[in-house]
Amino acid sequence: MKIVVLGGDRRSIKLAELLKYDGYNVQVFGFDRSEVNSLKFSENLYYAIENAKIIIGPLPCSEDNILLNTPLYSENIKIDEVFEYMTDEQIFIAGKISDEVLKKAKANNILTIDLFNREEMTVLNSIPTAEGAIEIAMKEMDITLHDSKAMILGFGRIGKILAKMLQGIGAKVYVEARNYADLGWIHSYGYNPVHLDKMKDLIGEMDVVFNTIPSMILTEEVLLELNKDALVVDLASKPGGVDFEKAKDLGIKTIWALGLPGKTAPTTAAGILKNTIYNIIEELGV
Amino acid sequence: MKIVVLGGDRRSIKLAELLKYDGYNVQVFGFDRSEVNSLKFSENLYYAIENAKIIIGPLPCSEDNILLNTPLYSENIKIDEVFEYMTDEQIFIAGKISDEVLKKAKANNILTIDLFNREEMTVLNSIPTAEGAIEIAMKEMDITLHDSKAMILGFGRIGKILAKMLQGIGAKVYVEARNYADLGWIHSYGYNPVHLDKMKDLIGEMDVVFNTIPSMILTEEVLLELNKDALVVDLASKPGGVDFEKAKDLGIKTIWALGLPGKTAPTTAAGILKNTIYNIIEELGV
Amino acid sequence: MKIVVLGGDRRSIKLAELLKYDGYNVQVFGFDRSEVNSLKFSENLYYAIENAKIIIGPLPCSEDNILLNTPLYSENIKIDEVFEYMTDEQIFIAGKISDEVLKKAKANNILTIDLFNREEMTVLNSIPTAEGAIEIAMKEMDITLHDSKAMILGFGRIGKILAKMLQGIGAKVYVEARNYADLGWIHSYGYNPVHLDKMKDLIGEMDVVFNTIPSMILTEEVLLELNKDALVVDLASKPGGVDFEKAKDLGIKTIWALGLPGKTAPTTAAGILKNTIYNIIEELGV
Amino acid sequence: MKIVVLGGDRRSIKLAELLKYDGYNVQVFGFDRSEVNSLKFSENLYYAIENAKIIIGPLPCSEDNILLNTPLYSENIKIDEVFEYMTDEQIFIAGKISDEVLKKAKANNILTIDLFNREEMTVLNSIPTAEGAIEIAMKEMDITLHDSKAMILGFGRIGKILAKMLQGIGAKVYVEARNYADLGWIHSYGYNPVHLDKMKDLIGEMDVVFNTIPSMILTEEVLLELNKDALVVDLASKPGGVDFEKAKDLGIKTIWALGLPGKTAPTTAAGILKNTIYNIIEELGV
Repeated sequence: MKIVVLGGDRRSIKLAELLKYDGYNVQVFGFDRSEVNSLKFSENLYYAIENAKIIIGPLPCSEDNILLNTPLYSENIKIDEVFEYMTDEQIFIAGKISDEVLKKAKANNILTIDLFNREEMTVLNSIPTAEGAIEIAMKEMDITLHDSKAMILGFGRIGKILAKMLQGIGAKVYVEARNYADLGWIHSYGYNPVHLDKMKDLIGEMDVVFNTIPSMILTEEVLLELNKDALVVDLASKPGGVDFEKAKDLGIKTIWALGLPGKTAPTTAAGILKNTIYNIIEELGV
Repeated sequence: MKIVVLGGDRRSIKLAELLKYDGYNVQVFGFDRSEVNSLKFSENLYYAIENAKIIIGPLPCSEDNILLNTPLYSENIKIDEVFEYMTDEQIFIAGKISDEVLKKAKANNILTIDLFNREEMTVLNSIPTAEGAIEIAMKEMDITLHDSKAMILGFGRIGKILAKMLQGIGAKVYVEARNYADLGWIHSYGYNPVHLDKMKDLIGEMDVVFNTIPSMILTEEVLLELNKDALVVDLASKPGGVDFEKAKDLGIKTIWALGLPGKTAPTTAAGILKNTIYNIIEELGV
Repeated sequence: MKIVVLGGDRRSIKLAELLKYDGYNVQVFGFDRSEVNSLKFSENLYYAIENAKIIIGPLPCSEDNILLNTPLYSENIKIDEVFEYMTDEQIFIAGKISDEVLKKAKANNILTIDLFNREEMTVLNSIPTAEGAIEIAMKEMDITLHDSKAMILGFGRIGKILAKMLQGIGAKVYVEARNYADLGWIHSYGYNPVHLDKMKDLIGEMDVVFNTIPSMILTEEVLLELNKDALVVDLASKPGGVDFEKAKDLGIKTIWALGLPGKTAPTTAAGILKNTIYNIIEELGV
Repeated sequence: MKIVVLGGDRRSIKLAELLKYDGYNVQVFGFDRSEVNSLKFSENLYYAIENAKIIIGPLPCSEDNILLNTPLYSENIKIDEVFEYMTDEQIFIAGKISDEVLKKAKANNILTIDLFNREEMTVLNSIPTAEGAIEIAMKEMDITLHDSKAMILGFGRIGKILAKMLQGIGAKVYVEARNYADLGWIHSYGYNPVHLDKMKDLIGEMDVVFNTIPSMILTEEVLLELNKDALVVDLASKPGGVDFEKAKDLGIKTIWALGLPGKTAPTTAAGILKNTIYNIIEELGV
């Protein structure tokens, strides 16, 4: 089966290598030739797409809904052109496909799959995110995580994995959540449950606070409670959950860590992409 | 605040004791006097309900929608009578309140809360259920759980806690699930994910299989794959997930374990009830 | 290679089966024929020993230093006779070989190996012992081990494994030890270290106490501090570490659990024997 | 009680701060005044020692057996002078006290205690060492530790803690040891035991290898088996356990990490010192 990888960053190149290693007929396009030495390079977009069963676009797919996101390519790829060359027997897989791009795909009768909607990918990406957060905390703190008090705000995907890893290293783990079912889970897993209402009372004892909630939770009022030596690691996507300016004023060390999987473990991140694509292939019976 | 416990089994009596210990004005009714020596016994149903803020009925509430479930009482309590004596400032809390009983409550303008709908209670009940399942496995197996291969069918509440505990004892844990997101979680937590399609191939290596899925999954076809020394523990509510007759024919030891919390850890089970009731009190601002 | 199993209990029979399964030429003697249906039965002691590379005696070897310990045999085997038939190219392996038996062996120029001196065996036997202790606690307690407070007296082999398993189930684990290095280890592993001096102050909070120290530690003075609902499980070999009479007077439930590996997990126990014998074979270059 | 801290690195200053925080009368000497702003500075060596119950020297104590080790002091402190000013009611505590220095102390009738001989300190120092090693691995590897294969050479203090933490993060942990008792422990804790003889066969599968054995174990012969992407972290004190030159020739990334506690978690390291000193105080009944 032919698979073509069409633009993207180093994670996409790594993905192409992994697919090739598994025996697929992999071609790449949308990179400067020097970037992809070990891979089969297509002459042009038409040849790249021709006969491919699966076309893998970038993550995220596009910034402007017109061009594919090709940071390692000195030329351009127009999305319209891609869909024009594709047939309805081919599948377009990419990350964060906007409504506008989706509309174009539908107009061309192209089946698209958004990787960011695949829960197994977001679940598995929590692992390198949590490890990256731990690496940051280890680097920044003057004490060990072992025996430290660590609070996690939010018990979603990242919160769950992070809590497990911190417990595994020997930290005293506190997890803030809003509803009683989550607090029940937190207790079941052996962490200390913290109801949102009690968070302010306890946060002053913490050595490190990890935020995973993408809304303003570490406001000035809460930051004032924090120990001056405490570290804050914000893992929430924009706009983040920390009043960064106030934190700076108060002298609280705060690190906003985004895109950790690609940064701290690019090979693992590419492997997660690959497995998600294999699941898609299996589900579609391609 | 006055709370009245109205019928139920020993778990309800234990609950009354715990509430009394915490300082509530607790009265009981719907038990023979000899069963509840240390508790304040109401003269009659009217006095029991009078001035109580909360009326706690049995779990489950009723078998026939007419009488409360009072296994430790030689007389009867009519549900109609309970609702008649109650006012709209009182709350009726019980387990598994049927649609018919609900209708009666609404007709009397009574606020009811079903404990079986409280997720924190079902989450926390998974703990004594999982421990009970482990106790059974330890008792029945000729080998240790440590270093044994254990497969859990289903990754719901009980599956999650059971997997964690088995891993904590040192078992090699396999978890069967259907969707890729759950399989991602299973991998994240360090268990071996088993897609339903592959379950039959792997189940023959297992020393023990725990079923948590309430539909026929361990059919004759699957049971034939099992090691003859393997143990099956079925934790699924009726109708269970095992073809028990075939298992017997094949000489596979199978245990259908229901109602484990009340049996293996009645005090813990009553404590979970108590905390759930406190959460309800807090939410309602009683 | 021929191996003969000479008397012993069901664990010895199970061991013979495992060795046979691995391809050894196994013969048994010192059991009534009905006990060992699936195994090759020797006609008499001489034939049993003839040409065997390894002779495996019982665990423990003998009660009176004259006869082998053969609880499943209606006749007798004299130790003198065994050593007489053996040559100096054969090895005699058994458990707890007394000085007197050892003297006899030396007089006959027989190489003996005492399984109870093999540290890997005593280490691995801690696993079924710890699991057996947990099974007992689960059976006897009205609460779950999860979230209970459990104190272990002693941080030797059994204490270490038991602490790990209890932590894995979700108990709050306290471990008593005497020296600061052990207390350092206890802290490192994430348990609560309890110096012997502080034991009496904390023991009143415990739900269950496991003793592993073979000397009187739970004296009347300490037992008086215990919660009346607490359970005591004594894992120490004779004379045990509990004043059992005082415990009974005080109404404290106490269980003295000895020989757990053979009772709770005979197959695992036999497997540990087998692996220890393989290590001996490898070390001796047999 | 007066305690004086006499020279040393930043860890010693941190120690002085912690002792002061706990209420001791702490004085420092052997640092330039600018280094120790918040602490009480002695005018001269005589005043520093006078009336102090405990004199805490550097870790290590001395490089040349003549002068104390005072990297943060522009002048010198002669060991002879220290012992001359001390009386036999004072205690000298330092790290790695050489035989020659010991002889001097004895000649002056001074009681000395070597912190490096305190097992609780070496045990607890394994925690920041293990965390430091994990931080290095997270930083250097392109994959997550979760789900990676990690081999630890040696099952001493550092090996034990490192194995537990790596397992807690979700790595597949292999531990090499020489004797069967250690291999039994490794199995008991749920790691994969690797006998020294089999190490070479398995090491090629590893993503990361941590060495804790202070003798040449990763020779050219073994390094040749390693995966080219694998990382080697050597935690062994001089001369280390890796043929660094060969590793470089083979293109294997190797990091020799020494003195991790002071570097990665100075506050934790000082806290360990403090607790060890408190244990000494308690034991001596000072």
